[in-house]
Amino acid sequence: MPTLKLAPALNVSTWLNTNQRISLESLRGKVVLLEAFQMLCPGCVSHALPQAKRVRDLFSPDDIAVIGLHSVFEHHSAQGSEEALKAFLHEYRITFPVAIDAQSAQGGLPQTMSAYQMQGTPTTIVIDREGRLRKHKFGAEQDLTLGAEIMSLIGEKNLPLQTASIEKQDENCTDAGCQIPNH
Amino acid sequence: MPTLKLAPALNVSTWLNTNQRISLESLRGKVVLLEAFQMLCPGCVSHALPQAKRVRDLFSPDDIAVIGLHSVFEHHSAQGSEEALKAFLHEYRITFPVAIDAQSAQGGLPQTMSAYQMQGTPTTIVIDREGRLRKHKFGAEQDLTLGAEIMSLIGEKNLPLQTASIEKQDENCTDAGCQIPNH
Amino acid sequence: MPTLKLAPALNVSTWLNTNQRISLESLRGKVVLLEAFQMLCPGCVSHALPQAKRVRDLFSPDDIAVIGLHSVFEHHSAQGSEEALKAFLHEYRITFPVAIDAQSAQGGLPQTMSAYQMQGTPTTIVIDREGRLRKHKFGAEQDLTLGAEIMSLIGEKNLPLQTASIEKQDENCTDAGCQIPNH
Amino acid sequence: MPTLKLAPALNVSTWLNTNQRISLESLRGKVVLLEAFQMLCPGCVSHALPQAKRVRDLFSPDDIAVIGLHSVFEHHSAQGSEEALKAFLHEYRITFPVAIDAQSAQGGLPQTMSAYQMQGTPTTIVIDREGRLRKHKFGAEQDLTLGAEIMSLIGEKNLPLQTASIEKQDENCTDAGCQIPNH
Repeated sequence: MPTLKLAPALNVSTWLNTNQRISLESLRGKVVLLEAFQMLCPGCVSHALPQAKRVRDLFSPDDIAVIGLHSVFEHHSAQGSEEALKAFLHEYRITFPVAIDAQSAQGGLPQTMSAYQMQGTPTTIVIDREGRLRKHKFGAEQDLTLGAEIMSLIGEKNLPLQTASIEKQDENCTDAGCQIPNH
Repeated sequence: MPTLKLAPALNVSTWLNTNQRISLESLRGKVVLLEAFQMLCPGCVSHALPQAKRVRDLFSPDDIAVIGLHSVFEHHSAQGSEEALKAFLHEYRITFPVAIDAQSAQGGLPQTMSAYQMQGTPTTIVIDREGRLRKHKFGAEQDLTLGAEIMSLIGEKNLPLQTASIEKQDENCTDAGCQIPNH
Repeated sequence: MPTLKLAPALNVSTWLNTNQRISLESLRGKVVLLEAFQMLCPGCVSHALPQAKRVRDLFSPDDIAVIGLHSVFEHHSAQGSEEALKAFLHEYRITFPVAIDAQSAQGGLPQTMSAYQMQGTPTTIVIDREGRLRKHKFGAEQDLTLGAEIMSLIGEKNLPLQTASIEKQDENCTDAGCQIPNH
Repeated sequence: MPTLKLAPALNVSTWLNTNQRISLESLRGKVVLLEAFQMLCPGCVSHALPQAKRVRDLFSPDDIAVIGLHSVFEHHSAQGSEEALKAFLHEYRITFPVAIDAQSAQGGLPQTMSAYQMQGTPTTIVIDREGRLRKHKFGAEQDLTLGAEIMSLIGEKNLPLQTASIEKQDENCTDAGCQIPNH
């Protein structure tokens, strides 16, 4: 019988839109939507971030935490500064907490992105009330699907049996998202 | 403590896209999405029917039945015939069962529409596994919301306590739907 | 040097949204947008008719006449009656003149559709101030393109030299329009 | 009789997507679409820049020059660097020439923006073949309208008589664009 794995810890250099650092442990008991994005990723701006805002508006903060994860893996000088991200969050009216994914000392992918083995941005991660990884989707997800999946996890009382799977986006991603080169 | 009421029975003159008549009783154990529409209602064509198709595609037929209800309350000669509706369902590729709401002998609203006290079309009705009315919404509903509500009912094991409420659409409905005159 | 042909005459059984019959001759001096549609054609409802309404709103009636042409070539019993079309025009708030394309005595395509050798609906026809056919496009056209083409004809003073060409829609048309079978 | 004014000169610190500096004088004989934007302006990203790309795709480069003008009046540290703009142009696949509007020594609005008395971004400017200002619109413009206006100017042979007017956007601009504070 497959078992579910705990979601990897967030490795964050700076938090925005919140006064305190947030750990996944501190969110036990809530479902967590973790939306990995880059401010210059067209699919993040047009689809994934507006969707995360709708999730924040629809569900109770007692049931779900919505967190943005700014995982910069390209154009570091353009989108890598805290100041640039702050301006972006202001202009796009994103008010939920946003974590800046910690860059790796050796270069390469930022650390949380790497720990989750993400393929690029946007990536939508959903974690259950017990901290286990339940959804990992690269690219665009339908609202109807995400709404159903989140509600399913909100309603969970018992240990679920299914294992999280990484869905690879079928379609060519050039318009919808930013895939890590040679991934 | 409020109690939930059983959804009124469907009063149907003709069924399309199915070989047999369907009753709500026969669907006990499944959630039911009942989408009331008119083929010449712009909001039904542009929003509610495509949404019902997405619901049909996303969820298992073991968990939810999707049913269209053609509740003609105006332009009877244009959209009131079975033949016109068949052509419409063909062109818009609607393959789930569609019930033609029975016209009343005295004129006025068709009978199912009247029993549910609908305000117009589109109206989205959701019925739980035990046949109780759980959602009644006139006008457009967000995908994220509907997905979450349906999944909540799919996951229900115990008797719920909340009562179905009729949400009245806030905005002016002229573009989105067809309100019953003087309603 | 190619020469331009006069657009074929309209062969109309009934006019709606106007008190008098309209001939192309009577429109000499104006550009004419002729939008061929069927009320149960999804691409007509979602794209071509809203676009024709925008053309009507943008340009002066002194410069361009906008005319709908209801060319029913399938589902005659559902969409072939004047009463059905009237209800449709009312619900979709189409107020420009609409011609019902005359059915042929031998069956087959309606007569204006046949005279223009249309491939299906929607078909967008543009006729210049001197009555010559200048655009014939089956399927969806971009607003930017149509706006530019109409304005070019509005501005014409001299005899143009280019010949009207029939552009065949590249993409599979099942969602966008209704192609005549075996065309 | 009103006379048309020459469009003010561009005051540019750096040109991107071109090997040489461009002046309006050097474009005499062509219509010019000048699209003023900021990379963190939502209405620019979602509407004005995609529209400018469509204009570039539709019309001949012999008839119209399409130029972006990056007029940063806020969040200078986030969007003010050449490197940030280059990354943005790459990710959004903008290939027409883009001018970085010269900042003023005294602070305040960038110089070209100021010379044109722009109210914010996006602002769509159209200049005729003789270098005269013919359109100045703050906020979103319809494709049908812009296509018609550009084609009208492409077709011009004689001196036109109408004067360019500055259209003020009616609706509240918070979603569509970025208005200069206290403008």
